[in-house]
Amino acid sequence: MSDQWINNERLSGQISFLVEIDKLKSVLRKTFLIDKSRLENTAEHSWHVSLLAVVLLEHANDPSLNLNHVIRMLLLHDLVEIDAGDTFAYDTQGYLDKEERENAAARRLFGLLPEDQRGEWMELWREFEDGVTYEAKYAAALDRLHPVIHNYYTGGVSWKNNGIVKSQVLKRLEPVREVSDTLWKFTLEILQRSIAQGILLDDPVTEEE
Amino acid sequence: MSDQWINNERLSGQISFLVEIDKLKSVLRKTFLIDKSRLENTAEHSWHVSLLAVVLLEHANDPSLNLNHVIRMLLLHDLVEIDAGDTFAYDTQGYLDKEERENAAARRLFGLLPEDQRGEWMELWREFEDGVTYEAKYAAALDRLHPVIHNYYTGGVSWKNNGIVKSQVLKRLEPVREVSDTLWKFTLEILQRSIAQGILLDDPVTEEE
Repeated sequence: MSDQWINNERLSGQISFLVEIDKLKSVLRKTFLIDKSRLENTAEHSWHVSLLAVVLLEHANDPSLNLNHVIRMLLLHDLVEIDAGDTFAYDTQGYLDKEERENAAARRLFGLLPEDQRGEWMELWREFEDGVTYEAKYAAALDRLHPVIHNYYTGGVSWKNNGIVKSQVLKRLEPVREVSDTLWKFTLEILQRSIAQGILLDDPVTEEE
Repeated sequence: MSDQWINNERLSGQISFLVEIDKLKSVLRKTFLIDKSRLENTAEHSWHVSLLAVVLLEHANDPSLNLNHVIRMLLLHDLVEIDAGDTFAYDTQGYLDKEERENAAARRLFGLLPEDQRGEWMELWREFEDGVTYEAKYAAALDRLHPVIHNYYTGGVSWKNNGIVKSQVLKRLEPVREVSDTLWKFTLEILQRSIAQGILLDDPVTEEE
């Protein structure tokens, strides 16, 4: 939808973009709401994880990080799923062409915005994807911790549905270890409790002499 | 749910809060998604309107406003609906005890957070509700513009379902007029087109001599 509004090119592009991103509310993740009533969609996940970033800031090893930058990244980090779909964290097949699909999506979606904003948003999204800056790592840490909390409080329904084992989750949570000693301790405890309660499968024991 | 985590009182309270606010994803608004597939929930609305605030900033009469403050307000402004429910913008009956219901909700929800954060969040929420600062007005403007855009692009389904007429919408959009000449022009144009297309009812003509 690219209506012209009040003879203002910039505003018209921005409204097209804002209308288009409504579709993120229909992209479903593998994670359930905590009351298990349905799968979570990516728009509400983006809201929730932005609030995680605000509330848990004090636990970052460097809490002087640029939180506003983090929130911006988290609000937009999954927009590409509108075209590329949600690639399940443990879907190794889906990850093969994930980058290519998401790059095309970013070009199309951010392309609806005026040129200066397009560049700015592309950069923010790239920064999140590259995961090099401390802000990108903190954002990724919360993005990955969020489904673990949901899994714990739903009895591991998504882990069970997909036959996930502890080592897969731990590997995925590496950014948490990098940015926060406190949140890493929390991560280890929630995984340990999950295994004790039969919510998450421990890794199969390999034969040792 | 108030589990204790890693013997850390603060973190445990914060996790309780973050688990509790998941319920906002189940609070339904009167607005439909733009593809009309279902009603919008308040969590995804909060995400969408935060992005409106970022994308449309340049159109504020004073774009030097504190955007980060606005985004924080928008992320949390509707949390009280978890207890108090979504009061439809045009429900005069529901508005009678809205303040009381929402105050109690704020005390319970923000009460899950450590004391310093509780105070900070209460203040942010109060600032939004009071609508006095420029930031609160800008946040309210987008919060109110958002369902208008949804109504326009869904053929006015929520307006029609609830028999809403133009003057009601205009009154509700007053904050837009206060913060942005450009967005106010846009508002008048979208309402005018809505009436021309039969999406929104014009006011009944009162008898004049």
